[in-house]
Amino acid sequence: MPRIRLALAQTNPVVGDLSANAQQIVHAAREAAAAGADLLATGEMALSGYPIEDLASRPSFLAACHRELRMLAKALQDAGVGDLPVIVGHPDGPFDVQSLGDGNAPNAIARNSASLVHHGHVKGTYSKHHLPNYSVFDEYRVFVPGDELLVVRVRDVDIAVLICEDLWRDSGPVAAVRAVRAGVLLTINASPFERDKNEVRLPLVTRRAVEGDTIVAYVNIVGGQDDLVFDGDSVVAGADGRVLARAPQFAEHLLVVDLDARAATDSPQENDSPGQTGVTRVEIESAEHLRPPLDQPIAEPAGDLEQVWNALVLGLRDYVRKNGFSSVVLGLSGGIDSAVCAVLAADAIGADAVHCVSMPSRYSSDHSRSDADELAERVGLHYQVQAIADLVSPIESQLSLTGIAAENLQARVRAIILMGLSKTHGHLVLTTGNKSELAVGYSTIYGDSVGGFAPIKDVPKSMVWELARWRNAEAVRRGEVAPIPENSIEKPPSAELRPDQTDQDSLPPYEVLDGILEAYVTRKLGAADVVALGYDADTVNEVTRLVDRAEWKRRQGAIGPKISGMAFGRDRRLPITYRPTKTPGTE
Amino acid sequence: MPRIRLALAQTNPVVGDLSANAQQIVHAAREAAAAGADLLATGEMALSGYPIEDLASRPSFLAACHRELRMLAKALQDAGVGDLPVIVGHPDGPFDVQSLGDGNAPNAIARNSASLVHHGHVKGTYSKHHLPNYSVFDEYRVFVPGDELLVVRVRDVDIAVLICEDLWRDSGPVAAVRAVRAGVLLTINASPFERDKNEVRLPLVTRRAVEGDTIVAYVNIVGGQDDLVFDGDSVVAGADGRVLARAPQFAEHLLVVDLDARAATDSPQENDSPGQTGVTRVEIESAEHLRPPLDQPIAEPAGDLEQVWNALVLGLRDYVRKNGFSSVVLGLSGGIDSAVCAVLAADAIGADAVHCVSMPSRYSSDHSRSDADELAERVGLHYQVQAIADLVSPIESQLSLTGIAAENLQARVRAIILMGLSKTHGHLVLTTGNKSELAVGYSTIYGDSVGGFAPIKDVPKSMVWELARWRNAEAVRRGEVAPIPENSIEKPPSAELRPDQTDQDSLPPYEVLDGILEAYVTRKLGAADVVALGYDADTVNEVTRLVDRAEWKRRQGAIGPKISGMAFGRDRRLPITYRPTKTPGTE
Repeated sequence: MPRIRLALAQTNPVVGDLSANAQQIVHAAREAAAAGADLLATGEMALSGYPIEDLASRPSFLAACHRELRMLAKALQDAGVGDLPVIVGHPDGPFDVQSLGDGNAPNAIARNSASLVHHGHVKGTYSKHHLPNYSVFDEYRVFVPGDELLVVRVRDVDIAVLICEDLWRDSGPVAAVRAVRAGVLLTINASPFERDKNEVRLPLVTRRAVEGDTIVAYVNIVGGQDDLVFDGDSVVAGADGRVLARAPQFAEHLLVVDLDARAATDSPQENDSPGQTGVTRVEIESAEHLRPPLDQPIAEPAGDLEQVWNALVLGLRDYVRKNGFSSVVLGLSGGIDSAVCAVLAADAIGADAVHCVSMPSRYSSDHSRSDADELAERVGLHYQVQAIADLVSPIESQLSLTGIAAENLQARVRAIILMGLSKTHGHLVLTTGNKSELAVGYSTIYGDSVGGFAPIKDVPKSMVWELARWRNAEAVRRGEVAPIPENSIEKPPSAELRPDQTDQDSLPPYEVLDGILEAYVTRKLGAADVVALGYDADTVNEVTRLVDRAEWKRRQGAIGPKISGMAFGRDRRLPITYRPTKTPGTE
Repeated sequence: MPRIRLALAQTNPVVGDLSANAQQIVHAAREAAAAGADLLATGEMALSGYPIEDLASRPSFLAACHRELRMLAKALQDAGVGDLPVIVGHPDGPFDVQSLGDGNAPNAIARNSASLVHHGHVKGTYSKHHLPNYSVFDEYRVFVPGDELLVVRVRDVDIAVLICEDLWRDSGPVAAVRAVRAGVLLTINASPFERDKNEVRLPLVTRRAVEGDTIVAYVNIVGGQDDLVFDGDSVVAGADGRVLARAPQFAEHLLVVDLDARAATDSPQENDSPGQTGVTRVEIESAEHLRPPLDQPIAEPAGDLEQVWNALVLGLRDYVRKNGFSSVVLGLSGGIDSAVCAVLAADAIGADAVHCVSMPSRYSSDHSRSDADELAERVGLHYQVQAIADLVSPIESQLSLTGIAAENLQARVRAIILMGLSKTHGHLVLTTGNKSELAVGYSTIYGDSVGGFAPIKDVPKSMVWELARWRNAEAVRRGEVAPIPENSIEKPPSAELRPDQTDQDSLPPYEVLDGILEAYVTRKLGAADVVALGYDADTVNEVTRLVDRAEWKRRQGAIGPKISGMAFGRDRRLPITYRPTKTPGTE
């Protein structure tokens, strides 16, 4: 079997910043060439960032990508690495809509493509066949499917290229690639993190390897883009299903691996009739050269909570950085949610860039202030106190607000303080609500919900506590001070908007609430089916009613990193105007 | 040629309220039967409302629709109109995903269907072949395409059924229907209003009639659903392209029309080989009975501004009504935007349900107060004044806010007042920003942007003035008082957040701004192409930069009725995190 050295670049592109993304690829190519690689592959859309959404329907954007790809080919040449073939993920187009036929949206003018760049030129292009259009993905909206294969022969090994969703479907290019008997199936991906997703992804990769009797090389981008966190975790599996190489999660990385792959066969029967699928073939002349020995350990993914923590940190860091902020501000209530957000922010961008405000009201307990003090002290956060009583009173009395209207007022005055500090100092405002609250609308819109980014919006309250305990334990393990005051973890949760309030005055206990939400929101069960799981019917009806009614608030909420299989946002699209029927026997 | 009497029911369903929607259909069937109709058709998804978005992926919701359709069949029987065949639009499913093959999203379990209900039973079902997945539509996400035809023979006329998008595509069922030589092509629709859309829709209907040498009957639902306004405008065109019947826009209506249609042919060659498409055929036995004569005028659509006004009124009315509100509250600044919103609200739900607040600051001019007074007086709105100076000062001084931070503070205190009145009295808050402001982010988030519904969010500032002038002229034409004070129309627009401010301190003149926005947002031109239209390059670069940067604010904004071909919201999906590349020569 011939041996080839493959390099997979786990880059962190910024959507739209084509020249900077191209520079990342040039940098990876230099590193790969220095390591003696025979071929380098980037992740899906590494040139443009992913997802580009409706930018794919702007001809000028596609033209810019087209130019940038050609400039990248020249730049690789200029950098002295033009001999290294590079597979680059990029949007392709604009195509003439008329020429694309009837297969898709009438205004899709782009393809989701991977091009082989070599010796200063684009030598061949593969376009994704299967366009995901579920969950957070809208690819059928903006892309036209491809229908051909690209096979690159390097050192007598055929490397067939796929893009992301193509690997997940049994029909289509997976079968066609099997028919050409490629030695390596290379799939380039932009696959966002979800809890437990690497327990699905890795078995898929190894299964495809075994099924196709081929090596599968899987390269993923890394980094935060709005509500998505791409986790990298690039991996290579042998034809026997064994993991041969694996990159770390949540970090930029160049994975280089030596592969003993099946030699290419030139038998025309096998090579030239993969069903209806046309094949573009490119043969690379590889020079013999000394290769430095490789010593890359196979990365082991972290435990569940550590993965979630790292995803949240990366999502937050990249939102801040990629949107041009250098600092954040948030309110510290002394409670667990804001404490966890503050520590996430410190881990993401450094404590010195995190500005916290305690905003006690007349109803705030002594411990809210002291727990907030304690947190700021332990973590080294910037910290100030702005009492709100004197700001609330004039409004409350002029408008004669009482009850919940008066409670909301307190939250909204706090929002004004945070937004004022944001505008004055250029901080990004973080909003600290968790997924359980967001689900049932247990927050004040234009109050505690304000901000540009919501670090824990996809974390249920039960998991907020788990993350706090994990982070504290991790600090102790590292010989550091546990950042989160134990009292913030242990005390009963309260919005403290009236005397002696606790969340459980209005909501079922969080373990019950989170169980119902998992069934109704994530598993999409009807209320009757949720009750059948053993929950109290009145509680279920009330919770589902609250979830439905809170849609308008969620729609106006900040984005935040998706870590679950069903995040609020583009993952779950429901009408605001929705009146569940009253017919007996229906849901 | 046999003559049949066709009834088209332009109903206004509420998403999810299956039993109420079914009642609307029973009501229409009674009316159609009394008029001697041979067949009744509803709009697309008249049973469930449209769009149902991800409700289509909830098995319990689909099961409820399934039951409701069968209950409707019985209810029609019980109402004594079981003899009348009724084509009902509804979601169909849940289907076993495995059985649906590889053609779609892995988790789509529903079809978008039209069933023939007759004599208490469901006799046949057509499912939409072409699933729109562009603009505001996400049907490929949640539906699986159908691949068969349904032909109903009534009084010796074959009526073939299509659904909405099917009519727009040249291939697929349009061709198959031609092959079966149906006498009537019946298409049921949920087609939202856009300016000038009936200038596209009607020619399509008449073109299909002429092409297919057949009558085309087009029935559309009516009513507001979140950001969409379905305008009805059901129409019937003869094989010669002549309009035979047309229903009014923006109103529930039963359109009944006599049609002399081609007699069915039983020639097997023509009838049984429409390509690969299977055909379900149902024959209806129609009794002879006396028919009352028909006298339905062909409705003429109104002029452009009147159509827009009516769309805005209906969108607002239905949002209020369908979400269980009975009143609204908004701030009156004395400016044109809030004036137009107040009059729209009065037209939608009656002046007595409209509560307005003037919230002058120390920078407010005398005319802002007096113009607001005058408007409230002319229209008969509830009106109160809440000065904000004493509420703003304590916050401003505690936080030492200056400049734009201090300007935003005023807008946010006003927001607190409106939200407080909303919570206390149950009013829906209307936010009065226009499309031009929304585009460039010329508003204070959590300030003047607060509210559940934004009546003019898709109306550019230039058109706000046009609408105001049109509405005043319309009042005069009807012999009523012009509602909007002329001074609100004529004076230079100003946010009045600092002394002598006008919008043009920060923005180009609105006619220039709106022109650039039309090119950049609606036509999706790159900045260089906008400049090539003749706009100043610096202005174009500044405006496009503002549009890109305001994405995060728009994402947190209220929904409002779409009236253009490119509304902000689900019509235009762009990343928040987006850094246009700095490469020379690229956009």
